[in-house]
Amino acid sequence: MNRFGQRFSFTTFGESHGKALGCIVDGVPAGLLIDEEFIQSELDRRKPGKSKFETARQEDDKVEILSGVFEGMSTGTPIAMVIYNTNQKSKDYSNIKDVFRPGHADFTYFHKYGIRDYRGGGRSSARETAARVAAGAVAKLMLQQLNIEIVSGICEIDGIKAESFDYDHAKESIIYALDAKVEEAQKDAVMRAKEAHDSVGGVSRVVIKGSPIGLGEPLYYKMDSILADAMMGINAVKAVEIGDGISSASLRGSQNNDPIRANGFESNHAGGILGGITNGEDIILNVYFKPTPSIFQEQHTVTKDNDEVDFSLKGRHDPCVAIRGTIVCEAMAAIVVADMVLLNMGRTIDGVKNYYL
Amino acid sequence: MNRFGQRFSFTTFGESHGKALGCIVDGVPAGLLIDEEFIQSELDRRKPGKSKFETARQEDDKVEILSGVFEGMSTGTPIAMVIYNTNQKSKDYSNIKDVFRPGHADFTYFHKYGIRDYRGGGRSSARETAARVAAGAVAKLMLQQLNIEIVSGICEIDGIKAESFDYDHAKESIIYALDAKVEEAQKDAVMRAKEAHDSVGGVSRVVIKGSPIGLGEPLYYKMDSILADAMMGINAVKAVEIGDGISSASLRGSQNNDPIRANGFESNHAGGILGGITNGEDIILNVYFKPTPSIFQEQHTVTKDNDEVDFSLKGRHDPCVAIRGTIVCEAMAAIVVADMVLLNMGRTIDGVKNYYL
Amino acid sequence: MNRFGQRFSFTTFGESHGKALGCIVDGVPAGLLIDEEFIQSELDRRKPGKSKFETARQEDDKVEILSGVFEGMSTGTPIAMVIYNTNQKSKDYSNIKDVFRPGHADFTYFHKYGIRDYRGGGRSSARETAARVAAGAVAKLMLQQLNIEIVSGICEIDGIKAESFDYDHAKESIIYALDAKVEEAQKDAVMRAKEAHDSVGGVSRVVIKGSPIGLGEPLYYKMDSILADAMMGINAVKAVEIGDGISSASLRGSQNNDPIRANGFESNHAGGILGGITNGEDIILNVYFKPTPSIFQEQHTVTKDNDEVDFSLKGRHDPCVAIRGTIVCEAMAAIVVADMVLLNMGRTIDGVKNYYL
Amino acid sequence: MNRFGQRFSFTTFGESHGKALGCIVDGVPAGLLIDEEFIQSELDRRKPGKSKFETARQEDDKVEILSGVFEGMSTGTPIAMVIYNTNQKSKDYSNIKDVFRPGHADFTYFHKYGIRDYRGGGRSSARETAARVAAGAVAKLMLQQLNIEIVSGICEIDGIKAESFDYDHAKESIIYALDAKVEEAQKDAVMRAKEAHDSVGGVSRVVIKGSPIGLGEPLYYKMDSILADAMMGINAVKAVEIGDGISSASLRGSQNNDPIRANGFESNHAGGILGGITNGEDIILNVYFKPTPSIFQEQHTVTKDNDEVDFSLKGRHDPCVAIRGTIVCEAMAAIVVADMVLLNMGRTIDGVKNYYL
Repeated sequence: MNRFGQRFSFTTFGESHGKALGCIVDGVPAGLLIDEEFIQSELDRRKPGKSKFETARQEDDKVEILSGVFEGMSTGTPIAMVIYNTNQKSKDYSNIKDVFRPGHADFTYFHKYGIRDYRGGGRSSARETAARVAAGAVAKLMLQQLNIEIVSGICEIDGIKAESFDYDHAKESIIYALDAKVEEAQKDAVMRAKEAHDSVGGVSRVVIKGSPIGLGEPLYYKMDSILADAMMGINAVKAVEIGDGISSASLRGSQNNDPIRANGFESNHAGGILGGITNGEDIILNVYFKPTPSIFQEQHTVTKDNDEVDFSLKGRHDPCVAIRGTIVCEAMAAIVVADMVLLNMGRTIDGVKNYYL
Repeated sequence: MNRFGQRFSFTTFGESHGKALGCIVDGVPAGLLIDEEFIQSELDRRKPGKSKFETARQEDDKVEILSGVFEGMSTGTPIAMVIYNTNQKSKDYSNIKDVFRPGHADFTYFHKYGIRDYRGGGRSSARETAARVAAGAVAKLMLQQLNIEIVSGICEIDGIKAESFDYDHAKESIIYALDAKVEEAQKDAVMRAKEAHDSVGGVSRVVIKGSPIGLGEPLYYKMDSILADAMMGINAVKAVEIGDGISSASLRGSQNNDPIRANGFESNHAGGILGGITNGEDIILNVYFKPTPSIFQEQHTVTKDNDEVDFSLKGRHDPCVAIRGTIVCEAMAAIVVADMVLLNMGRTIDGVKNYYL
Repeated sequence: MNRFGQRFSFTTFGESHGKALGCIVDGVPAGLLIDEEFIQSELDRRKPGKSKFETARQEDDKVEILSGVFEGMSTGTPIAMVIYNTNQKSKDYSNIKDVFRPGHADFTYFHKYGIRDYRGGGRSSARETAARVAAGAVAKLMLQQLNIEIVSGICEIDGIKAESFDYDHAKESIIYALDAKVEEAQKDAVMRAKEAHDSVGGVSRVVIKGSPIGLGEPLYYKMDSILADAMMGINAVKAVEIGDGISSASLRGSQNNDPIRANGFESNHAGGILGGITNGEDIILNVYFKPTPSIFQEQHTVTKDNDEVDFSLKGRHDPCVAIRGTIVCEAMAAIVVADMVLLNMGRTIDGVKNYYL
Repeated sequence: MNRFGQRFSFTTFGESHGKALGCIVDGVPAGLLIDEEFIQSELDRRKPGKSKFETARQEDDKVEILSGVFEGMSTGTPIAMVIYNTNQKSKDYSNIKDVFRPGHADFTYFHKYGIRDYRGGGRSSARETAARVAAGAVAKLMLQQLNIEIVSGICEIDGIKAESFDYDHAKESIIYALDAKVEEAQKDAVMRAKEAHDSVGGVSRVVIKGSPIGLGEPLYYKMDSILADAMMGINAVKAVEIGDGISSASLRGSQNNDPIRANGFESNHAGGILGGITNGEDIILNVYFKPTPSIFQEQHTVTKDNDEVDFSLKGRHDPCVAIRGTIVCEAMAAIVVADMVLLNMGRTIDGVKNYYL
C-alpha cells in the first residue's frame, strides 16, 4: 500500500540500491506553474553527503519529471518523477546478506515477505523519502498559491533542547537547528556519537503557517490524525505530538484551553487544531526520531537461519536521522495540507453552488 | 469521511443529542460467533455515569444489531449496530447556543460547515466513540480467534505516573488505573480538579499481545502510522508514542536497538514494530489526552457573531476524559489489528496458492 | 465492501428478511435542505406491492433519518437512514432452506461465505436497493441545487421496444413506460409471463440532464466507467451502454462522431461523455435487466450437499425486475453525478484560489 | 484519479507525446517469478505499427522495470515500469493545436482543465493503455500460478460477427479474429474504411477461464460491476455485457436461468457470475468499441475560441481501435481478477485461522 492521500495523493516506488526511485503525484490542480528548480532545491535539502553530520553516500538526487507538465504548467494529469540511483554500493552489504541488523526492518520484511533484499534495507531504507520530498515540493508549490507556508527545524538532539525556534536560522543551518545558542552543542553531540561508532536521536518541529480555518475532515480524516499518520510513517519516527501534546496531559483544563477573542485565540496550546479541524492558528507538530539503528559497535543478532551471531555493521549512515528527517516532515505536512485543501472544497452547498453556478 | 479501515472497516453516524448513533462494520469474516453480551459488556466499560469520576449523564448505551448476523454468526455481510440516545438534555445547552466553548470544536465546525449544532458538541462529541467501541468489540471477537489480545489502562493522571503496569488490575479499577500504588493519588487529583470546577489530563497505555510477526503494510499503511492515526483521531488526544517513543529521541542507538536472539528480542524499546511491521513482541502505545475542555470556570470566548463574552459553562462532563478514553483506545487498536490481519493475507504467492489450490 | 463513492458516498446494510436495512450517506455538503417527504416519495416509487406488475410483498418502506440533519438542514455529518422490515415472511423460504435457486446468488454466497441465509436471498436480495434509493434521493436534492435532473423509464420489456422516450409519461406510468404506444403491449407481456409462472427481462433508459461540462475524473474514475460500475452492480443487470453504445460498434467514424458547433454538439451519439468527461450534452444510459430468476416452474438444481433435485419455487416476486429497477438506476446515477460534482472542484489552481482567497 | 484496484492495484502516468509513460503496480505478492520476456511479449501484442490494420506510428514499447524485483522475483514492494516514447511526432499535431477533434476528448479536457495539450490527445490518448498492458502482464503471471487464464479476441468488426470463438486462432491472427471464416471479411471491412479515410467499430470478447467459485466482493465491489468499470474505462468503449447480457433482457426467466447439476451448471447464460460473485463457470464479457474518432474526412468543429471551422485531420491512427483494444481488455480483466483473488482471502474466519494458526 504505497500510496498516501485522498485527493492530492502520491504513490512511490524504489529501493535503496535499485535502479531508481520515484513517485506519481496525482490530483495536482491544472494550471500550476511547476518550478523544477524549486523541486530540485527541496531534494537538495534532503540529499545525503552534504556534511560530516550526514551519511557519506553521495547521491545527486537529480529529479526528472516524466509526465503531467506541459509548457511549464501542470495539466491535471499525474506528475511522475524519477530519481536514478548512482552511488549504490551493494557490495557494502555483502557482510549483512544473511544477518538481520538490530533496530532495522530486515527482520520484519524477511518474515513478512520471505525475501531478503539485503542491499541497504531495500524498500525500507530512508532513501525512499527522496520521493516524498519530490511530491512534497509539488504540494508546496500549490500551497504557495494559497499563502500557506511550511517550515521546520531541529529542536532537540541527544536531549539538548532548543529554547527558541528560529525557522529562518534553521534554513541556513547545516543541521537545520532552530536555536543558534544550542546548535554547537547539538553538533558536538552528533560528532561524539559518530566517533563512538554510535548514533543519536532527535526531534523535528514543524509549523504550518497561514492555514485557513476549516481544514480537516472529521471524523476519520482529521487534520491531526492524518498528520500523525504521515509523520509516524517516516523512517525512525516513534512519537508525534500536536501543540502542547505530551505536556497537555499533565495540565488542567483551565491552563490548557485557548481563550478566544474577536481577532483569534489568546494562546495556542492546541497547536492550531480543534476537533480535527484547523482553527486558523499555526499548526504545530513535534516529531520524535529514534537514533539511527545503523551503528558500528558489535551487536547481538541472528541470521536468516535463526543462528545467533555477534556482528559489527559496515557501510555509510547518518549519525542522526532526525536532521535530514525534518525535510521529510515538511514534505509530508505539505502533502497532508494540500490534500485537506482539496477535500474541504465541497463542505457547504453554498460553496458548491458558487463554484458551479 | 466517516469511515476507518481498509478491509476490516467501520463507518459511524450520530450526534451527541440526536436520535441515535451507531456504525456499520464491514469486512468481518463469515462464520464468526457474534457474542452480543460481549459487545454490550465492552460498551458498558465505556458508558458514562458509572462513578463520580465520570460525567453524570446516564446512558444505557444498549446496542442493537440490525444486520449481518444469522443464527448467531457473522455472514460476511455488513454488521450494523445502533445505540439510541435516551438521556440527552438539549436544554442544558441553550446557554451556549450562540457561544463557542474554548478547547472544543464548536468554533471550527461552525466555521467549516456554517452550521451551529450546539447540542452537546453534535458530531464532535466524544459520545460518538460508543460506536467505535461497538465496532472494536467485533474486532476483538475476531482477534480472540487468533489469540491476539488487547489490554490497556491509565498510566498517568495530572502528572501522577504509574510505576508498574498491571492490566488485570486496570480491568477492575473504576478509573482503569494500571498501578494500584498511585491509584488513590490519581483519583484524588481528579476529584480535586472537579471540585475546583476544572479538569485534568491523562495518559492511556495500550498493549497488543500475541500479534504474529508481519502485520503492517509498508510504506503508507504501516502498523505504527495507522495506530497513530487511529489514536490521534480520538477526542482530546494530542500525542501518541510507540514503544519508548519520546524518550528514544534522547537515547543513543546502542541503547535503543533491541538485540535479537534465537527466541526473540532481548528488549522491546521498539514497541513491537520495526519498519512499520510487527516483530512478534508486544505492541506498546502511549496515548496522551488533554484535560477535558469543558470546565465550569469563567472563560474568554466569542459568539457566533464574533462578539467577545466571558461565560461559564453548565452541563455534565467527565473531569478526566482519559479514563473512559482508554476503552476507546483499545477498540481502535483492535480495529487496526483486525484490518492488518486481513491485509496481510496476500503477502506471498505461496500463501495465495496454499489458500486456493 | 459495502460502500460506493469517493466524496459523496454511501454505505448500506441489511438483508431481505432481517430487522432493518439502511444506509449512511457521507459527504453531503452542509446547509442542504433535507426534504424528508421527497426522500420518502422516492422510496414510494420503488416500494413493492403497488400493482399486479410487482411482487405482492407489502412493505411501507418508511424511512427514518437518524443523524446528520439539524433544523431541517444537512450539517456536513453523515446522514444515517433506516427502513425497518415489516412484511418479511421467512417461512415462505423454508422450502428452499437447503436448495440453491437457479439464477440467484444462493449458490455463490454459500460457496464464498460458507453460510446459507436462505431467507429471501439475504443480503443478495434486491430489497437492499431501497437503501440505494434513499441515498440517491439525498443526491438528487443536492443536484437540484445545481439544476441537474435525472430521469428514466422502461424502454423495452420482453423485446417490445419503445420508439419514443417520454420521461414525463414514465413518471405517471405504473410500469414506468417511456412510450405510451407500446405500454399496453409491454404490460401484456409481463402478465403473460406471470400467468405462465415465468418472468421477463427489460431495459431501463436513464438520462442525466443539465450536467456541466467537465465531470469525470480520468483515467480511472471516468464518468462512463463509474456509471457502468454503478449500473452493473444493480441486481439482475447484465449489460450497460452509454449513448449509442452497442450500435456504435457497427458504425463508421464518420457516422458516429458528433460534429461540434459554437452552441454545442450537432448530435449525441456519444451519450454526453468524451474521454470519460461530460461534454455538456445529455448523458444517456441503457441498462439491461435479465428476467427475474424467481420463477414458479420446476427447475434443475442442487442442495447444499450437492444432491441434484428438481424443485418449484414458492414466494412473492416481481415478474419483471426492470420495472422497479429503473428507480434504482436513477438513484445510482444521482449518486455518481453528485460524487463527480464534488471531485471536480479541485481541477484547476485558479478554481482553488477563487475558493479560498 | 489515476489508480485502479484495491489490493492488486496500479497507478499510471504519461501522455501520448511526453517523455515516457508507465505504471506502479502495487500489491503483487512476494515470491512471484517476474518473467520480463512475458511482460514484453504482452506489450508486443498491443504495440502499434505491426500491420496495415494499425496506426503507422512505430513504437518499440520497450518496458523497463525500475523496482520491486530482486533476483528475478517480486519482493512485495511496488513494481514500477517505464516505457519511453521514441516515435512521437508532435508536429503532426500542429494543425490541430487550436481545434477540437470530434469524437475525441480534446473538447472535454480543455473545458475541464483549461489546458490544451494538443500533442496526440495527451493523457487521453489510447497510448496510455501500454501501461495497463504492462500491469496486466504482472497480473497474468500471478493468475498463472492459480491456473486462471484470460483469453480474448475480436468477435465483430463493422457489423460482421464471428459465429464461433477460437481463442487459439485469435492469438495467431493479425487482427485477433476469433472466427477464421469471417476474418477476411472483417479485414476487408477495415481496409475499405481506411481507404475511404474512415474508421470502423468492433467488439472484443474476453473469457476468464479457471476462476474459482467465490470471487467478487458484494455489494459494491462485485466481479461484474468492477469488470464493467474496467472495460468501460478503456478508450472508445461504449458498452459492456456479461454473459448473454443484452439478449437476456428479451428472454424469459425459464430460458435465461442456468440449471445447476452436481458437477456444475448446465448452461452459462449468466457469464459465470451470480450476485456479483463467480460461480466457477467461464466468465464471459463482450466489450463494444466505437469506431476510431480520428478520420481523415472533413468535419465540423470549433476552435479553442469557439469559432466554427471545417477541418480535416492528419496523423497516424488505427482504423479500428477494437483490434489492439482487445489486448487491453485482457489486461484489465487480469487486474480485476488478481485484485478479487486477494480480496477474497479474508472471507471466512476459518480461512483466516488456517492462514495464521
